[in-house]
Amino acid sequence: MAASLGWNRYGKSRVRVLKVFRDGAKHSVRELTVKIGLEGDFDAAHTKADNTGVLPTDTMKNTVYALAKDHPMSSIEAFALHLGRHFVSTSKHIAEAHIDISQVQWERMEVGGVAHDHSFQRVGPETATCAAVVGREGARITSGIDDWMILKTTQSGFSDFMRDKFTTLKDADDRLFGTSVTATWALGTDADFNDARCAIRKALLETFAKHDSLSVQHTLFAMGEAALGACASIDAIDLAMPNNHNLLVDLSPFGMPNDNEIFLPIDEPHGMIEATVRR
Amino acid sequence: MAASLGWNRYGKSRVRVLKVFRDGAKHSVRELTVKIGLEGDFDAAHTKADNTGVLPTDTMKNTVYALAKDHPMSSIEAFALHLGRHFVSTSKHIAEAHIDISQVQWERMEVGGVAHDHSFQRVGPETATCAAVVGREGARITSGIDDWMILKTTQSGFSDFMRDKFTTLKDADDRLFGTSVTATWALGTDADFNDARCAIRKALLETFAKHDSLSVQHTLFAMGEAALGACASIDAIDLAMPNNHNLLVDLSPFGMPNDNEIFLPIDEPHGMIEATVRR
Amino acid sequence: MAASLGWNRYGKSRVRVLKVFRDGAKHSVRELTVKIGLEGDFDAAHTKADNTGVLPTDTMKNTVYALAKDHPMSSIEAFALHLGRHFVSTSKHIAEAHIDISQVQWERMEVGGVAHDHSFQRVGPETATCAAVVGREGARITSGIDDWMILKTTQSGFSDFMRDKFTTLKDADDRLFGTSVTATWALGTDADFNDARCAIRKALLETFAKHDSLSVQHTLFAMGEAALGACASIDAIDLAMPNNHNLLVDLSPFGMPNDNEIFLPIDEPHGMIEATVRR
Amino acid sequence: MAASLGWNRYGKSRVRVLKVFRDGAKHSVRELTVKIGLEGDFDAAHTKADNTGVLPTDTMKNTVYALAKDHPMSSIEAFALHLGRHFVSTSKHIAEAHIDISQVQWERMEVGGVAHDHSFQRVGPETATCAAVVGREGARITSGIDDWMILKTTQSGFSDFMRDKFTTLKDADDRLFGTSVTATWALGTDADFNDARCAIRKALLETFAKHDSLSVQHTLFAMGEAALGACASIDAIDLAMPNNHNLLVDLSPFGMPNDNEIFLPIDEPHGMIEATVRR
Repeated sequence: MAASLGWNRYGKSRVRVLKVFRDGAKHSVRELTVKIGLEGDFDAAHTKADNTGVLPTDTMKNTVYALAKDHPMSSIEAFALHLGRHFVSTSKHIAEAHIDISQVQWERMEVGGVAHDHSFQRVGPETATCAAVVGREGARITSGIDDWMILKTTQSGFSDFMRDKFTTLKDADDRLFGTSVTATWALGTDADFNDARCAIRKALLETFAKHDSLSVQHTLFAMGEAALGACASIDAIDLAMPNNHNLLVDLSPFGMPNDNEIFLPIDEPHGMIEATVRR
Repeated sequence: MAASLGWNRYGKSRVRVLKVFRDGAKHSVRELTVKIGLEGDFDAAHTKADNTGVLPTDTMKNTVYALAKDHPMSSIEAFALHLGRHFVSTSKHIAEAHIDISQVQWERMEVGGVAHDHSFQRVGPETATCAAVVGREGARITSGIDDWMILKTTQSGFSDFMRDKFTTLKDADDRLFGTSVTATWALGTDADFNDARCAIRKALLETFAKHDSLSVQHTLFAMGEAALGACASIDAIDLAMPNNHNLLVDLSPFGMPNDNEIFLPIDEPHGMIEATVRR
Repeated sequence: MAASLGWNRYGKSRVRVLKVFRDGAKHSVRELTVKIGLEGDFDAAHTKADNTGVLPTDTMKNTVYALAKDHPMSSIEAFALHLGRHFVSTSKHIAEAHIDISQVQWERMEVGGVAHDHSFQRVGPETATCAAVVGREGARITSGIDDWMILKTTQSGFSDFMRDKFTTLKDADDRLFGTSVTATWALGTDADFNDARCAIRKALLETFAKHDSLSVQHTLFAMGEAALGACASIDAIDLAMPNNHNLLVDLSPFGMPNDNEIFLPIDEPHGMIEATVRR
Repeated sequence: MAASLGWNRYGKSRVRVLKVFRDGAKHSVRELTVKIGLEGDFDAAHTKADNTGVLPTDTMKNTVYALAKDHPMSSIEAFALHLGRHFVSTSKHIAEAHIDISQVQWERMEVGGVAHDHSFQRVGPETATCAAVVGREGARITSGIDDWMILKTTQSGFSDFMRDKFTTLKDADDRLFGTSVTATWALGTDADFNDARCAIRKALLETFAKHDSLSVQHTLFAMGEAALGACASIDAIDLAMPNNHNLLVDLSPFGMPNDNEIFLPIDEPHGMIEATVRR
């Protein structure tokens, strides 16, 4: 058997790190999960058991800690690019570093109506994400949001759709609309990532809230369009929005009406709507 | 083989329901997961395959939907008691109904600085909980909080502890303190559950934030004491607080100091501190 | 506020350890997750921030590793008792140690029809469990099985049950019966735990397979009775068996019959049947 | 704002179905989770709220049930292609259907040494997977395995690797090697999918067991090469193998040796090695 090596990548996943920033008595925290993947010339490791070109994944983990120490982490994107550039600079046979970061949210507590200096509570499940690809000639980066669960209780319908012999769904002119948004957009590597994130998230939120939704697709497109309007630096936004169904419960066997009051939330199955909206 | 039936209970778990309340254009939502367990004389079902005394668990599920329709759900406790009383009233051989409810949090969105009428986002992982036990002679109920993740970055230490031959832990006078609070307390069945919940949660939060913690036990007790102080109606509070460790990363192999900046958050193993604090 | 400490326990959860046993070239493995909880006089830690009686939970974790090294681990029960006795012997103010262990299954691979010396694959989700309580005067222990998912496709029905105004379920004389068994039984602290486990599991499995089930309760009782018959050393067995529903899909809208062929498996909601079967 | 629609896909995820096959008294089961995604001309739905071209995702779910009824399901691949062809044939504006299926394993029980007719237990976490893409001009399909957890306790090392200033890992000539294999390969749409799956899995398993592993990369490549040798119909195999670390516990603080006996299994972080092996 003559076999050869095709595409390959290796790295370390689920590297967690929490950094505390101390501005006098006032602290803040960033809690990240980092994934690192390296591409390049790793043939000898696979075909000749020659490990001399293999930087251990354990070292990648250590690198996250060490670089976190000295980096300001003004944004997760800046830290991802910094990590990626470090790995590519380590050796010429490493062609590309893929760095994915997600950040959970620790919100400052209020005590007696005042923001507390060093105490926090977790909000979520929403996370902030980014994905950097750093090559020998340059880098690119996307930013994003994941697991952002939102819900509206009216101004949502789905009617006049295509029907075939397996269609039993009825037209709905007033239904619940729940989703868990995954959004991704690309900025230049020197952008103000936090400003853009803030503007894009606000546009997505306000559009979701105010839109007269005639389908998930319809609202997804409007949200994408609003994000493009809110942030001139992006050319496109990718949105993935599951339809987290809340089924209207049939109360008629009990002689009861159900005027859009009682719903059964289900996790499976769920619709999944994905699209790129671009200028 | 002569076998006989000992303690037994049956019911339905993970019954999810979402109710929309419509006050004109302004909506609000409650999303609950309900668990129902019945105790009583169910021997014949087990030993004689006689199902005539077995209310189907499918019916219990339907009952949650139907009773949710007509109940104001001013609190999850009131709804749990209502459900329990219903089941016990169904038939004399049903001696006791156990109703557990947990509620996820849907927070109203802000749009243009104004609270939106019908759009929400999920916060959490914190849930509000209650557990009712309704018997033929009366009922009792506990309220609680679950999965409330909190963190403080200073004013926490652990020193001068017991040591044996397997002890390698060093004294720490300034460490991170992260936990995920589970709290449970009991009120009378006619109490103002929401007021009590609000007062207790505030006392727990503010004490956690301000306490000079010398151990998880020390802070847990102070939090419990504060809850008793904040709510005259409870005699005791049960607290379970894991020590969600954030390990200080050793950067010395890289010639770097680590002045309480870089931590490794881990989920396992974790400490677990549980106690009842009472008047 | 004068508060006092009520019931309390503290310890370490999710302590994982894997031990390799080497009998020449033939290896075997045990992978355990251990939970430790200590009870005793820990008042001073809570009320006076006096840690001198607090064995760190980090030490408990170390103790699992150290004792695993020197213990033969012939059974998880023997190791749990050994751990518990160690903690209670550490200091007089420790009154009781609670040790819970669960073990995942690594099954030896077959290579060329022969059992391989040192390669394994994970089966499951079933785990073997035990729970020891070691006090100053003695110890007790229960053994068990958890997450054992089983299914039968006929010889299961549920009919002639109690009906009320919320009942919509129809009689079923031939339905699927899927469950995930949790079983717990108690032996003396010097018992042959592995023999008993083997005999009890076999009795549970064969009874589930062969029983003409008229309800989950009916089969649960028969399984418990068979376990008592198979193992003379136990006086009782606790069984918790969710009804993991497989709903018959209504294909009539598509003009198709569904003669017990096409089912929708759901995780939520699910029935939950629990009972003790005793001599 | 002038925005336009870029790439898009929509469908239904986590559609579960269980089919019982009855050959007289002898039954067998297939439990599948299906994901459906359609691509084509869906611009009007997004930009004009015109749903006339949108087949509801609810209909896709129904279609899985209905087609499962009449299909022999000799393989998951055959069923995925059948589903995909159905959706593409529904309407000309549907250009491509993506069908992903995963199947859990229900193993027949043995009762009294004999395979039982209608009782099963779940093994796993391993699943069988496939992914079909059906277009208007033709179809392609990949088969695979997911979550296959395997472990070897010797014949594995990692030495003489690349070192930088953040490297602390020591050479290891005898370590544990645990992984959770994801494998994917492509056959023609008329292939004997089950035979190929069986041969490929056997080659992967036996190579993992017997290989003198000098790195995960080294063994991954050998496993891929063996799969190519075992199945002449595939040109390449994609393998993703995390390094599920079992860390050697340092027992020296307790004055104990640890001759590869006591390990700490961790889920995070983990290495991740991915490659295509081709002829």
